[in-house]
Amino acid sequence: LNRVAVVGCGYWGPNFVRNFSQISDSEVAACCDLSEERLRHMRALYPYVRTTTRLQDVLDDPTINAVVVATPVTTHFRVAAACLKAGKHVLIEKPICPSAREVLGLIDLAEERGLVLMGGHTFLFNAAVVKVREYIENGELGEIYYINTTRVNLGLFQEDINVIWDLAPHDVSILNFVLNARPVAVAAYGRPYIQEAVEDVAFLTLEYPRGIIAHLHVSWLDPNKIRRTTIVGSQKMLVYDDVATLEKIRVYDKGVTVQPHYDTFGEFQLAYRFGDIYIPKVDDSEPLKVECLSFLEAIRKGAISKSSAYEGLAVVEVLEAAQRSVRRGGRMVPVADTLKARRKRRAHRAAARGAGR
Amino acid sequence: LNRVAVVGCGYWGPNFVRNFSQISDSEVAACCDLSEERLRHMRALYPYVRTTTRLQDVLDDPTINAVVVATPVTTHFRVAAACLKAGKHVLIEKPICPSAREVLGLIDLAEERGLVLMGGHTFLFNAAVVKVREYIENGELGEIYYINTTRVNLGLFQEDINVIWDLAPHDVSILNFVLNARPVAVAAYGRPYIQEAVEDVAFLTLEYPRGIIAHLHVSWLDPNKIRRTTIVGSQKMLVYDDVATLEKIRVYDKGVTVQPHYDTFGEFQLAYRFGDIYIPKVDDSEPLKVECLSFLEAIRKGAISKSSAYEGLAVVEVLEAAQRSVRRGGRMVPVADTLKARRKRRAHRAAARGAGR
Amino acid sequence: LNRVAVVGCGYWGPNFVRNFSQISDSEVAACCDLSEERLRHMRALYPYVRTTTRLQDVLDDPTINAVVVATPVTTHFRVAAACLKAGKHVLIEKPICPSAREVLGLIDLAEERGLVLMGGHTFLFNAAVVKVREYIENGELGEIYYINTTRVNLGLFQEDINVIWDLAPHDVSILNFVLNARPVAVAAYGRPYIQEAVEDVAFLTLEYPRGIIAHLHVSWLDPNKIRRTTIVGSQKMLVYDDVATLEKIRVYDKGVTVQPHYDTFGEFQLAYRFGDIYIPKVDDSEPLKVECLSFLEAIRKGAISKSSAYEGLAVVEVLEAAQRSVRRGGRMVPVADTLKARRKRRAHRAAARGAGR
Amino acid sequence: LNRVAVVGCGYWGPNFVRNFSQISDSEVAACCDLSEERLRHMRALYPYVRTTTRLQDVLDDPTINAVVVATPVTTHFRVAAACLKAGKHVLIEKPICPSAREVLGLIDLAEERGLVLMGGHTFLFNAAVVKVREYIENGELGEIYYINTTRVNLGLFQEDINVIWDLAPHDVSILNFVLNARPVAVAAYGRPYIQEAVEDVAFLTLEYPRGIIAHLHVSWLDPNKIRRTTIVGSQKMLVYDDVATLEKIRVYDKGVTVQPHYDTFGEFQLAYRFGDIYIPKVDDSEPLKVECLSFLEAIRKGAISKSSAYEGLAVVEVLEAAQRSVRRGGRMVPVADTLKARRKRRAHRAAARGAGR
Repeated sequence: LNRVAVVGCGYWGPNFVRNFSQISDSEVAACCDLSEERLRHMRALYPYVRTTTRLQDVLDDPTINAVVVATPVTTHFRVAAACLKAGKHVLIEKPICPSAREVLGLIDLAEERGLVLMGGHTFLFNAAVVKVREYIENGELGEIYYINTTRVNLGLFQEDINVIWDLAPHDVSILNFVLNARPVAVAAYGRPYIQEAVEDVAFLTLEYPRGIIAHLHVSWLDPNKIRRTTIVGSQKMLVYDDVATLEKIRVYDKGVTVQPHYDTFGEFQLAYRFGDIYIPKVDDSEPLKVECLSFLEAIRKGAISKSSAYEGLAVVEVLEAAQRSVRRGGRMVPVADTLKARRKRRAHRAAARGAGR
Repeated sequence: LNRVAVVGCGYWGPNFVRNFSQISDSEVAACCDLSEERLRHMRALYPYVRTTTRLQDVLDDPTINAVVVATPVTTHFRVAAACLKAGKHVLIEKPICPSAREVLGLIDLAEERGLVLMGGHTFLFNAAVVKVREYIENGELGEIYYINTTRVNLGLFQEDINVIWDLAPHDVSILNFVLNARPVAVAAYGRPYIQEAVEDVAFLTLEYPRGIIAHLHVSWLDPNKIRRTTIVGSQKMLVYDDVATLEKIRVYDKGVTVQPHYDTFGEFQLAYRFGDIYIPKVDDSEPLKVECLSFLEAIRKGAISKSSAYEGLAVVEVLEAAQRSVRRGGRMVPVADTLKARRKRRAHRAAARGAGR
Repeated sequence: LNRVAVVGCGYWGPNFVRNFSQISDSEVAACCDLSEERLRHMRALYPYVRTTTRLQDVLDDPTINAVVVATPVTTHFRVAAACLKAGKHVLIEKPICPSAREVLGLIDLAEERGLVLMGGHTFLFNAAVVKVREYIENGELGEIYYINTTRVNLGLFQEDINVIWDLAPHDVSILNFVLNARPVAVAAYGRPYIQEAVEDVAFLTLEYPRGIIAHLHVSWLDPNKIRRTTIVGSQKMLVYDDVATLEKIRVYDKGVTVQPHYDTFGEFQLAYRFGDIYIPKVDDSEPLKVECLSFLEAIRKGAISKSSAYEGLAVVEVLEAAQRSVRRGGRMVPVADTLKARRKRRAHRAAARGAGR
Repeated sequence: LNRVAVVGCGYWGPNFVRNFSQISDSEVAACCDLSEERLRHMRALYPYVRTTTRLQDVLDDPTINAVVVATPVTTHFRVAAACLKAGKHVLIEKPICPSAREVLGLIDLAEERGLVLMGGHTFLFNAAVVKVREYIENGELGEIYYINTTRVNLGLFQEDINVIWDLAPHDVSILNFVLNARPVAVAAYGRPYIQEAVEDVAFLTLEYPRGIIAHLHVSWLDPNKIRRTTIVGSQKMLVYDDVATLEKIRVYDKGVTVQPHYDTFGEFQLAYRFGDIYIPKVDDSEPLKVECLSFLEAIRKGAISKSSAYEGLAVVEVLEAAQRSVRRGGRMVPVADTLKARRKRRAHRAAARGAGR
């Protein structure tokens, strides 16, 4: 039996408490939050769960083998590092840390101790997203041209991170996953309207390999709640609408075919195809539950989970690049590949040492 | 009675023929097109209308006082200039010309002769757009923060202009009109997927005065036909959906209020407001008909029409800047103000001449 | 070349004028209406078409071989009978006549003279309706359980017929066509709210053979325009929404399977099936044009057209029964089969004569 | 503190457990169900709640002062009567009983003991329904003409009651509430498709006083989940869509005005009005929670609650009449008024006794 502590019981943490309570091979050993009021709320819902305002209580409890970190982003590193050092497996809310350097630090801590370190990119456990990846991988959409995503609504404004760090992690994790790739460059344009210096509206353009472009619109300032991803391929087009309760994915048998040019005329010849629409049934189990199960399975197998810290690192690298681009007025900037750079650095140093001998 | 010739009877021209046929103080004197097949089609619909493949026939007919130019964009200048020189009033499809320099040339020709020169920016005659402007002008939305527009569908691909020149003129003319302003800078990111070197997907960011941002998504490669404009203000938010048949405008009494900061706490305090939604009845007369009537009225009064060539020039200036930005990888570039620049140049020269005396 | 006269140029007649003008092997020879104003309007649209207020002008013109009757329903018999007697083929708007007896009179006139007599049940020429029939006929929906249709909007109120005679002909003709059957009994409940004694809201229940039930809601008094038909079968379910511009048909792979009862438990066992949704591409040519072409083809071939007067008669028989039911407070009443009854009567009389010899 | 037992923990009962757990002046004292498996499920969710398969345990516990009855309908009377006799306040799921006679029996038991007896007509606690009633009561819709409701989806089939008893209670309770009236007659047409003799599709027509008609469509056999109520008034029209998450109520400023007849012409004159649409913000608190609070308040005050057994009785009277109508092939039958009849009977008997003296 896994005994899980949930650190941070604000907006999202209670969902972990609910799920780990209901899964048969786990139980919630403790709820930890700085706010006595939040803990009171948790006790009302789960009278039998221990609550504490001190992280140290969690660290000191040897029966707790896993911790969920759902605190504000800026505290992620400090909390998760302490948990890893105390020998606990860690599931950490997205974005894992506000910098790739910190994520790397956590990865190293986890690897040294053989602990599971997982990022809470819930959408990777969403059955619709998995289905979208299948459609792309089996070639049904043809060659992917571009992807357009919108993730907007009114609120919830954050004060410690801007809308890019708050909402774009979802889209970046989804895009990296369904394209099985990572962007090489990103341009981002953002504006703060409500709070000084905290962008609440942003537009991002991501350049993926093979000429694929992804464009993201994220906003805390929109009258409608929209979560829509449009994928345009050479054969078919697909719209994934996460707000729809039943019809989350629509596959359009639509496209344009470029005709070979005729020498005699050299005329402009395009053939449009307007065909059927197909709405596959998508499994509607709660993605967060699948995520929790995946975490427990990684612990059991000692394996790297789906949504591992490596994927979380790739997301953070995009966010860092986006942030730089915003500061530079929307200019396209390259996305760092921290792990690759480190491998190169090490290889270089090793070579230098070899040469120095 | 106005006798109107329609030059160019491809996709859009026939709509002018239909409208000027049905308006009581105008009649269609001639249809002109290079394609004999198109002319045959026009004769089938309007057996009594004269058709010709030679523009000269139109120019030479003294009973024709007005010409609609609905030919491919690259021919606009040549055709319109000939008509103006022949003393005809001209209504010219959007975009007026592929360069601001050419538009200016036409403006000069028209002004010298006292002729009406109007751009076919149909949306300025759309009752919903007029209503949107009212909502902004009367302050009901509060301070405007940002505007997001989407104008996408599958096709119709153009071969002589890219999607920016084809679709964005609508949005730019609407934005300039409802904001009663012109953008100072624009960044555009576009990609050609189907035809080499002709962008079929583009994203534009326009910087208007007073910190207002407008973001445009235009595409010929989207499974759905979307024409949606979201306007976010400090008091209310508005969505204008031109694809909706009945409910084109929705006004959301939604917003966020920034609370004054308390010294002692300096806490994060935002108040959300989720209120009623209001869908005003919008007049559903055909915008193109209103445009045609406006053209005839300008002729009658010898006045400058709504959607004058000056507004059309401002649109072209934005498109030119966007095109430059695409070539520079999406970098923000300033929008030229041709008329102001010329006034300055002339003033400068006059001053120089004065000084030289 | 067919020369067609359109008698009645009010709401619907002009659509016939437009279509027969544009079809290559027909031309509109005359427009006939009692209102000089309507004729003026027609001349404005079609300057070359002859107009007249006198039906006799149409009857007397030997170059006219076909007439469309689009006058008020109560005049249908008189006008159509005169046209048939004058040797013209007749296409008559739905419902063909306000009584089955009158329809039968017209059928006899047409048969005696070998003329085409067709009812204007446009929906039989609607590609979506044709597709719905295919889905039913090829068994994809399984056994049909019941059909529910809604045809409501605000207006257009008629003064000479109630909402059942105005709107239900569409649904009855569609149902008879897709089920390839005619109802045996009908119950109808209607109420007049705006005009005295003219029902503007009605609910009809039709009993078709094999236990199939169809329920119709027709109304001139509804805030929304709805034209929706839901067909529930044992295998799949289908929704046909004629207001949708693009997605008119949706096929749901949904259903319930009754499990065989287990002796030991005898428990309540149903298996639900929630599957994919399929939206077939439907041809979007104008149904009225297909109808006009079908009329011309029947003339050419001397054949019975689709939407023949026989189908129109079956519709009127249902409407008459519905009207009787309304008067009797919604009681289920049988639907007469006029032709069958006449055949029986004749057979009986022949037998009687034979016996008398 | 109220100590509540929930009897019946199948589909709906657990929602009561959740609500009474979270309300501060109540706690769940026991969960009772015949199925050991359901009780295991409840213990997993609420480890601290006592569970039992014996109703007697609930009746015998003197600390339990209130019971929720959420068992199958046919057992309602037996369970509720036992609880009332044991001195417990009772909240009983809809429909209260399968016969008016039984409801009356429970009412008598409760009145004799001064106990609260409430029917679980949740929609009476739905903020949208309360708002609809306000719109009708304050005259904004004008005179009510007719109401059309649709409550359909695929499943959940019941085995002990048909679709009328399962789904129509919601609509009848809503209609009685918003119209502040009860129907005088009802016609119902139903058909069983899946289970023998258990109607799964039905259409009901209710005649309310003042000529108001309500038409209901209920079905367990429809591909879409629809819960829509359309109210047509002489001034405005209203649509209440309970499936919509945000825009539950739409008020249409639409209507038809009958013009006074002109003597000279006696012409058909109707004026249509197509105006704005208004979507009021509706409070989104959980109706069931409001219902639970209302039950507790009635207990505290010793008062008759909203959704009292009297309203529940009126609903059952309509269902009984509907059932009779189905058996008679859809004929309109009168709705009994049990309480009024009893009062009359008693008055009669008293008079008879008086006369007999």
